[in-house]
Amino acid sequence: MSANKISLPVIKRLPRYYRYVADLKDEGIKTISSSELAAMLGTTASQVRQDFNCFGGFGQQGIGYTVEVLHAELEKLLLGGQALDIILIGAGRLGRTMSYFISQGSLGYRLVAAFDADPAKIGQKLGPVEVQDVSALAAFCKANNPKVAAICVPDEAAAELSPVLAESKVEGVWNFSHFDFGLANPAFTVENVHLGDSLMSLGFRVRKTNS
Amino acid sequence: MSANKISLPVIKRLPRYYRYVADLKDEGIKTISSSELAAMLGTTASQVRQDFNCFGGFGQQGIGYTVEVLHAELEKLLLGGQALDIILIGAGRLGRTMSYFISQGSLGYRLVAAFDADPAKIGQKLGPVEVQDVSALAAFCKANNPKVAAICVPDEAAAELSPVLAESKVEGVWNFSHFDFGLANPAFTVENVHLGDSLMSLGFRVRKTNS
Repeated sequence: MSANKISLPVIKRLPRYYRYVADLKDEGIKTISSSELAAMLGTTASQVRQDFNCFGGFGQQGIGYTVEVLHAELEKLLLGGQALDIILIGAGRLGRTMSYFISQGSLGYRLVAAFDADPAKIGQKLGPVEVQDVSALAAFCKANNPKVAAICVPDEAAAELSPVLAESKVEGVWNFSHFDFGLANPAFTVENVHLGDSLMSLGFRVRKTNS
Repeated sequence: MSANKISLPVIKRLPRYYRYVADLKDEGIKTISSSELAAMLGTTASQVRQDFNCFGGFGQQGIGYTVEVLHAELEKLLLGGQALDIILIGAGRLGRTMSYFISQGSLGYRLVAAFDADPAKIGQKLGPVEVQDVSALAAFCKANNPKVAAICVPDEAAAELSPVLAESKVEGVWNFSHFDFGLANPAFTVENVHLGDSLMSLGFRVRKTNS
């Protein structure tokens, strides 16, 4: 199954499909049509079929999708065979919350290290790891080759760390800062979580309906 | 300035424009062309002009944009005149982190209440408010008419609370759960922050480049 030319919107829809199909599996449902799945998700049957066709289909004409097969294929796509090693940069309030999130969820990751510049945080336990001095980041990456970094530091710190990460084997950046990792280094695969932007655009939409 | 037919992608780009323009203002820069702004943002000049045209333009032919005017217009659009009252539902680890985030940022919100079902959490201070029993939610909404709710509870709890919110004056939902508020009630204005989906799709993309 080739997944080289899948568009980003399709990729971003996959986790949602996976969650809904996992629920169907838990409920003991054996097969589902693209129309039924579309109705659950608030989308169209043709969207569902198009999306799944990017991965070779999964379905059979006239039968629909076998839930167990669909679940296994989506799981293989999303969680792969092996957990990805992820490091956390920034052990403040947000970073600590995200470290629990990464460690507890079955999201296909393994938290292997955490870093902070604040001496008061260095040495603290954070789930399975201990916070290290951020000055140890380059050496850690060289020795351990983590594939993903979660960025929970302010913009200036993110900008300073970007070249260090670019020189390492880190490919994926889960970015809570406003620093633009994709613009700094197009080789990074970036997922931005801009909480402030999300709240501000929600505010705009709510005010708009009231004006 | 009419903002009734602005598409969602344009609205979602506004906070980023606002942040960049705020930086320009801080740096004392007086005017900027759409090309310069586009280069900073990694987009095209025509995209910038199209986006701003949705709000009546802001710019002058041959001069570009006056940074101060642009900043003031974007601020008015995004933060409005008055802070929106927001309530937090779920005072666990994620909810507590988000309460600090909402209260500390200049995002146009005022945290007016927090709710949880866990007796151990009820009565705890959370920034400017004290956690109340979630059974008091309906009465609170009736008396105080908050406009926005931040949902930091598991899916089942979110599903149970959705009808309570639908009967209140809550219009905006900042949703960290997987419950689909938009599907449950199309009158809600919803911003989903699906942290798990974000990490999973990042994992897919990182694994893809390695396969």
